[in-house]
Amino acid sequence: MTEVTSIHPSGTAEPSRSERKHRAILDAATEVFLQNGYLGTNMDDIAARSAVSKQTVYKHFESKEALFVEIVTSMVSVAGDRVHSQIPEFQDSEDLAEYLSNYAYQQLTVVLTPRLMQLRRLVIGEVSRFPELAKVLYERGPKRAMTALAASFAVFAERGLLEIEDPAIAASHFNWLVMAEPVNQVMLLGDVAIPKVEALRRHAEQGVRVFMAAYGKK
Amino acid sequence: MTEVTSIHPSGTAEPSRSERKHRAILDAATEVFLQNGYLGTNMDDIAARSAVSKQTVYKHFESKEALFVEIVTSMVSVAGDRVHSQIPEFQDSEDLAEYLSNYAYQQLTVVLTPRLMQLRRLVIGEVSRFPELAKVLYERGPKRAMTALAASFAVFAERGLLEIEDPAIAASHFNWLVMAEPVNQVMLLGDVAIPKVEALRRHAEQGVRVFMAAYGKK
Repeated sequence: MTEVTSIHPSGTAEPSRSERKHRAILDAATEVFLQNGYLGTNMDDIAARSAVSKQTVYKHFESKEALFVEIVTSMVSVAGDRVHSQIPEFQDSEDLAEYLSNYAYQQLTVVLTPRLMQLRRLVIGEVSRFPELAKVLYERGPKRAMTALAASFAVFAERGLLEIEDPAIAASHFNWLVMAEPVNQVMLLGDVAIPKVEALRRHAEQGVRVFMAAYGKK
Repeated sequence: MTEVTSIHPSGTAEPSRSERKHRAILDAATEVFLQNGYLGTNMDDIAARSAVSKQTVYKHFESKEALFVEIVTSMVSVAGDRVHSQIPEFQDSEDLAEYLSNYAYQQLTVVLTPRLMQLRRLVIGEVSRFPELAKVLYERGPKRAMTALAASFAVFAERGLLEIEDPAIAASHFNWLVMAEPVNQVMLLGDVAIPKVEALRRHAEQGVRVFMAAYGKK
């Protein structure tokens, strides 16, 4: 059977039947994993929920682990993309502290969602049995965020806007001044501990104030 | 049967038979929980490992949850006590940044042990099913540490050594500048990511430098 990618009347390519199935399996699997945990999930449940045969699931994903890695990669990458796509380039006429506060707030609202927090709990709980799952989350999540921050900070330092010796260390300080307190609370106290908009705004500003005291132009 | 607390020749009270059993059950249960997870552990395994009957386990701990709560409380409280007992009071002749670096280093070495990190992963993985377990860890762990820090910072501010508006916020900034990066790495990358002595020393100093830039006397 040949899969045909038809052209949608609007001109955009409509996803093929195979792509739609792939997406349906991923969506169903995400729900099942978040609900039942990694060990508590099997390919039969995923097939039933996505209304395809188990063979079809295996045609798209060779194993439960491969499927889970794709889910972590996809969820965490989409979140990272959202943080970056919604923050414009910094303009010299702007206030850097305000710009960084907006960035921090954006990162907080994108990361502190029940689904991402559940995913993080799930992979942390499985580190000893399945170290690869958490490694994917680490690389695509905090590490990617800090690498991007370090690159931006290096540019800001070159432009004389920040005083930074080691951009990677400054990026780690920024990232955790912003993320650590609420992420730790939500990890341990559950999704009810996700702060409201006003509290997140204030938290972002307070973290940036500390960062600017250490790395701002003297 | 009456339990008799005998007096040890050295003058210290020797633990009673009941106290020894209580301790043996706790030790055995800690190993079993850390190895098999909360769901994967049952009272039979714990009884077998501590060489007592299941009835004896239930005489000391009414349920698996009560037993686990006591383990979390005990492990995390002992760690907290160790951080505080080994740090002397600050003397005015000392350098505050150096004092705080020693405190930070002490906290890092006490918390970043494979057993505490495994315990933290275990309770995080079980938050949705057993929210009380993680709540105990939060209260006895990070919250206790930050409450103690806030009290110290308030005193330092009164003595004119720090400039602090809100000691609780300053305590959160200090705590996470120090703890967040390595704890996050160890959570996701496993116990092999626990940094060595030299790296921890440097990390503590860098975090304190940022803290002092924001809260030190201008």
